Amino acid sequence: MSEALRVAVIGQGFMGRAHGLGWVRAAAVGDGPLAPELAVLCGRDRGALEANARRYGFAEWSDDWAGVVQRDDVDLVDICTPGASHAEIALGALAAGKHVLCEKPLANTLGEARSLARAAEEAAARGVFACVGFNYRRVPAVAVARRLVAEGRVGDLRHVRAAYLQDWLVDPSFPLTWRLDSGQAGSGALGDLLAHVVDLVRFVSGDEFAEVASVLETFVKERPLASGEAGLSGTKASSGAKGPVTVDDACAALGRLGRGAMVTMEATRMALGRKNGLVLELYGTSGSLRFDLERLNELLVYEAGASREGFSRVLVTNPDDPYLSQWWPPGHVLGWEHTFVHEFEDLMAAIAEHRQPEPSFADGLATQAVLDAVSRSANTRGWEKVDTKGVAK
Amino acid sequence: MSEALRVAVIGQGFMGRAHGLGWVRAAAVGDGPLAPELAVLCGRDRGALEANARRYGFAEWSDDWAGVVQRDDVDLVDICTPGASHAEIALGALAAGKHVLCEKPLANTLGEARSLARAAEEAAARGVFACVGFNYRRVPAVAVARRLVAEGRVGDLRHVRAAYLQDWLVDPSFPLTWRLDSGQAGSGALGDLLAHVVDLVRFVSGDEFAEVASVLETFVKERPLASGEAGLSGTKASSGAKGPVTVDDACAALGRLGRGAMVTMEATRMALGRKNGLVLELYGTSGSLRFDLERLNELLVYEAGASREGFSRVLVTNPDDPYLSQWWPPGHVLGWEHTFVHEFEDLMAAIAEHRQPEPSFADGLATQAVLDAVSRSANTRGWEKVDTKGVAK
Amino acid sequence: MSEALRVAVIGQGFMGRAHGLGWVRAAAVGDGPLAPELAVLCGRDRGALEANARRYGFAEWSDDWAGVVQRDDVDLVDICTPGASHAEIALGALAAGKHVLCEKPLANTLGEARSLARAAEEAAARGVFACVGFNYRRVPAVAVARRLVAEGRVGDLRHVRAAYLQDWLVDPSFPLTWRLDSGQAGSGALGDLLAHVVDLVRFVSGDEFAEVASVLETFVKERPLASGEAGLSGTKASSGAKGPVTVDDACAALGRLGRGAMVTMEATRMALGRKNGLVLELYGTSGSLRFDLERLNELLVYEAGASREGFSRVLVTNPDDPYLSQWWPPGHVLGWEHTFVHEFEDLMAAIAEHRQPEPSFADGLATQAVLDAVSRSANTRGWEKVDTKGVAK
Amino acid sequence: MSEALRVAVIGQGFMGRAHGLGWVRAAAVGDGPLAPELAVLCGRDRGALEANARRYGFAEWSDDWAGVVQRDDVDLVDICTPGASHAEIALGALAAGKHVLCEKPLANTLGEARSLARAAEEAAARGVFACVGFNYRRVPAVAVARRLVAEGRVGDLRHVRAAYLQDWLVDPSFPLTWRLDSGQAGSGALGDLLAHVVDLVRFVSGDEFAEVASVLETFVKERPLASGEAGLSGTKASSGAKGPVTVDDACAALGRLGRGAMVTMEATRMALGRKNGLVLELYGTSGSLRFDLERLNELLVYEAGASREGFSRVLVTNPDDPYLSQWWPPGHVLGWEHTFVHEFEDLMAAIAEHRQPEPSFADGLATQAVLDAVSRSANTRGWEKVDTKGVAK
Repeated sequence: MSEALRVAVIGQGFMGRAHGLGWVRAAAVGDGPLAPELAVLCGRDRGALEANARRYGFAEWSDDWAGVVQRDDVDLVDICTPGASHAEIALGALAAGKHVLCEKPLANTLGEARSLARAAEEAAARGVFACVGFNYRRVPAVAVARRLVAEGRVGDLRHVRAAYLQDWLVDPSFPLTWRLDSGQAGSGALGDLLAHVVDLVRFVSGDEFAEVASVLETFVKERPLASGEAGLSGTKASSGAKGPVTVDDACAALGRLGRGAMVTMEATRMALGRKNGLVLELYGTSGSLRFDLERLNELLVYEAGASREGFSRVLVTNPDDPYLSQWWPPGHVLGWEHTFVHEFEDLMAAIAEHRQPEPSFADGLATQAVLDAVSRSANTRGWEKVDTKGVAK
Repeated sequence: MSEALRVAVIGQGFMGRAHGLGWVRAAAVGDGPLAPELAVLCGRDRGALEANARRYGFAEWSDDWAGVVQRDDVDLVDICTPGASHAEIALGALAAGKHVLCEKPLANTLGEARSLARAAEEAAARGVFACVGFNYRRVPAVAVARRLVAEGRVGDLRHVRAAYLQDWLVDPSFPLTWRLDSGQAGSGALGDLLAHVVDLVRFVSGDEFAEVASVLETFVKERPLASGEAGLSGTKASSGAKGPVTVDDACAALGRLGRGAMVTMEATRMALGRKNGLVLELYGTSGSLRFDLERLNELLVYEAGASREGFSRVLVTNPDDPYLSQWWPPGHVLGWEHTFVHEFEDLMAAIAEHRQPEPSFADGLATQAVLDAVSRSANTRGWEKVDTKGVAK
Repeated sequence: MSEALRVAVIGQGFMGRAHGLGWVRAAAVGDGPLAPELAVLCGRDRGALEANARRYGFAEWSDDWAGVVQRDDVDLVDICTPGASHAEIALGALAAGKHVLCEKPLANTLGEARSLARAAEEAAARGVFACVGFNYRRVPAVAVARRLVAEGRVGDLRHVRAAYLQDWLVDPSFPLTWRLDSGQAGSGALGDLLAHVVDLVRFVSGDEFAEVASVLETFVKERPLASGEAGLSGTKASSGAKGPVTVDDACAALGRLGRGAMVTMEATRMALGRKNGLVLELYGTSGSLRFDLERLNELLVYEAGASREGFSRVLVTNPDDPYLSQWWPPGHVLGWEHTFVHEFEDLMAAIAEHRQPEPSFADGLATQAVLDAVSRSANTRGWEKVDTKGVAK
Repeated sequence: MSEALRVAVIGQGFMGRAHGLGWVRAAAVGDGPLAPELAVLCGRDRGALEANARRYGFAEWSDDWAGVVQRDDVDLVDICTPGASHAEIALGALAAGKHVLCEKPLANTLGEARSLARAAEEAAARGVFACVGFNYRRVPAVAVARRLVAEGRVGDLRHVRAAYLQDWLVDPSFPLTWRLDSGQAGSGALGDLLAHVVDLVRFVSGDEFAEVASVLETFVKERPLASGEAGLSGTKASSGAKGPVTVDDACAALGRLGRGAMVTMEATRMALGRKNGLVLELYGTSGSLRFDLERLNELLVYEAGASREGFSRVLVTNPDDPYLSQWWPPGHVLGWEHTFVHEFEDLMAAIAEHRQPEPSFADGLATQAVLDAVSRSANTRGWEKVDTKGVAK
């Protein structure tokens, strides 16, 4: 019989919904030592709260996160709020002895990220664990990519080409939601999209960024004020009033990894026609890999010395592929949501075994330090070293 | 507040699991007039039954389907057993006044399919509805394809090219599971795979098959006897004993639709490298379409007269696409499992509105009549007309 | 110093032009024992003849093919006329002791094809050789496909899926050119397109067709009369008068190869959006292959047992690939025209070495016998055996 | 009757051969006011010279370029030598009143490029024209891309993503050919590959680079000395001796165009598996485009507001597409070599009409100025403005 893991989810927006449904799935497919229980859903919009909680099957709901993180009947606090509130909630939860899963980016500033990494390290010593929600590590094809690199099948990396391309801001009449407000979101494409790129490059390459040169851009300087809650799509502006966009629409960087690979990377919400194009290419001395999130069941693999060299389109849906044994016969493809189920399973397995889940807050800090260097370089217009202070070696 | 729809799932194999998890999802995302309740899970393997039922959240479990279909606290019987038992269970459930969802193929013989269609028609007159589980109709890209054809965007159909290609029987040491036994499965690739092809052609084209010429083939005539339950992959044979394969490994047919389109179609479990390649191509006088289940979020669309003619890779993941409003921002792709959620939603909507859900048992019969003509043609080695006796016009 | 091979090209239409330019290229890149000399261009349209001859560099021109094939200063007669005249010209040329290259299909009837194969066999005994112009055998990727099958890398073939899809007849106002007149063209998609399919299946599989079941269709029964010469595209009809289309727009067939593989194949000029889609798929017990003429530099290769199984997109442009050593660095792609250069090179090498070039007229006959069975089956509406009378074993 | 244009080709290496064969083709297909005559082939390797000249059909050959550019019976000097000798030959030819076609990059230094642009401007005033051989402008799909941008179909450009990826230097035992010697080649991937990228971005966008930030890298610092002539592939080193690589293996840059688009671009000979991957992506406010040289007959086009939005794979092979009217029916694909035929045709048309051919030496200089800024930035490690001195507005 599995032991229960009582989960409080903080936030009921896009990520709150993705996590809520993810926990439902994790409970239904789970075979591990811990069985998730949807204990409390926490959100500010009281109007939607009860309906959401009932739909996903949460036993209770609340608009008081500070109280929730103190409850004895909560084991894990799952933070799905905008970045500005991550630090306060996560620090509170860790102090209360709760395991923490925090959505990415870990924080809006490098200083906050450092505090969080330090707090997480201290909590771990007490058996309380923290984890960042870089869910794309849990795409099976990405896990295979990492394994191929780790096994040396790719050889020494020469080039990493990565991008996260979306297009939902091309229309200048798209309204000014919280994601376009630096006070809440910290940054734009940088923290929302490039954060995923940086984490994936670190995860798959097994290497760290040493330095970067970059540019940030806001193509549309002001936008109509939004009315009420707004998602990533379909939100309509309500009046003629406009406000300033205070985050970047797009960012791009050159970079260098510690072992010498050249990196080009960029993120944008302005690449018309690319809906969710997180593309990662790695070129090594004996193999190359390519992944595209819009085709997340596939990995392109090139192996030097194969009898017929070419990029193989590998459908990563076999039962012996990572995460796949619990799912379906080959070719019955997974979707974006499965990444959350896998994330929760990995987290629960680590908690059950009293070991640090990955990516840790130290990982979150390492990524944040790269984003910080990207920000600095956009100002100094020169190469900036990644500040590794506080980043675990 | 939604009214409850109490569901009994019969079967806990591959399809039983897919439906179980599907109902969990449908309950968690649902916003419709009916709220599914997982009432009873019914299966023969008592050892696995309780664990499965608890995992998916069924309130009860039973190994007595005949009793279950009579229970007052069951509204819908969802049949996920091999084809040989479909008729008995479905007829029992309809007689007991339960709505029925029956996995495809509707039956193993045309006669059984006719009985079922007749029973369903009578039940419908009493407000009791039956539906066949051709879940690929619920792929959003397929729904878009149908709409484009219905709107006349494709013009008059000239060619339909369709195939369902899998490869799990290439290895001659793959064991003799129930799917290779005509007594249980009725047929092989024909009823398992070509049934999907036929249903999709009917659904998307809006037309009916008039006649076919075909061939069936069993490449590997005998296989090792299986030990215990066996899935579609990974099952190992246990001893040296072998038994005869009594179903087809592959089938192919030429066909003609009522309004004149030429059809070529085939299904096989022997197409090495194709894992779940259900491919549908339609060529009309003003447009063409292509769909591949391995990339189920995509539809290729060619429109004559577009400013630049070419096959557009349309990512069918926008909120205004069929089924998509409840899911995620554009480009956050769905998986194979979502087809079941959509199927259940459509079914519940129809039941709530007291109208016939689709595909009806009459649709199931129409498809069965095509499969029957394919079977006959493989024997007569000539063209065979589709026998439309009992098929609703 | 290479010896000269003096070439007379008969015909100055689409194929005459392709051959003319091909001989120019072959002369410019050639390094073989024979050096082609463009001796005579022969055509009926005297108005265009001189300009064409001068452009390609032919030394002379004539509208009298019967005289040309008798000339002492001609070594090879290259026949690029419609199928109806192939037999007379080829027989005349062989009788005059000239090597012959004859465009496909070899003839419009099986009887003519038999006569030609017999005449070619007799001529070969005298050191005079004949060859059919199935140029797609000379696509490097196709040559690699054949080699992989011959080396056993694909194992036993289970399925062949092949099609040649074009769309230039979708528009019912496309005029009635010679290609739509059975008197001149013999047949439509059958002899023009399916002939290529049949030859490629034979060439790549190394196997022969045993029997077929088929259908032929003419969707547009009459078309505007054409004015003057008409090509495959862009020709405009000149008046309101119409005439009957006497060839097939499309054909499809099921088939069986001698060693047991199932075949589905079709050819059409009505597949809107497919411009030159000659697609060949082979599925064997240890490997699979896919080729598409619209991407003629690529071959998709699946090998069971590779470290990561998937279809590799192999760019067949390396110097050690067939025909490639004379061309460019990897990735500098070839075009459709190169197939003619390769065809002429292979032919010249065979002539220089006094051996039978391939595909021989016996090959042409073997393909014709399959087309004939397809034709018969479309009438009998049953399976028809391929008549191998006169086909060399 | 066309007037003759007497061509002297200087160089008989990779580019000399491509041009030689290109002129042969241009002569055979040509229908323009000028008819090329292959007058003189000029090269240093006397052993190969006569055979090459005879093969392509040059009337004469010489190892004295200085004499050749003075000959009265030469109208056009086509320079196919390494970059180090471009300036001297081109200046000599222009001074002698010959039209000049010069392979890219125009020169190895910005200073030389300025001199050449000035000389070309002066020559143009005398009716003597100069042109740079950026042949990829002549890919039909690229010409369509430019037209779509020029017509405003793409809207305001937001992002340009471009790369030229090859892999022939991955193997550290590949020898030290002239292309790896800065004395002869000037630079590595920068001048050889990024030059194409920069020219294509300028050509398609219709905009100019304002500034760049960049990095250059030489991964393999020394290589075996080559013996004799060496091509891009297949060359073997002859002894154990090594020498230093004095050019870059790879380069990458961020950039900004004058009207505000962000650019990321890179070029490398170390991207294992990418043979000739010149990829250009443009994202605008109303449309997006993607081109890949390995599939040079295709253009991906995304148009906002199309009935079904998606990237259309447009096969640019229709008779009404740029350059296509002289070739084949739709879908009969062109190869890399056709770019040279188109280049020569455009050049001859301009000369015949006494107007400046494009890209002019001023264009060559503009591209060189961007490459120069890339070089400087790699040293200063900061953003560098493009020096437009001497660049025509």
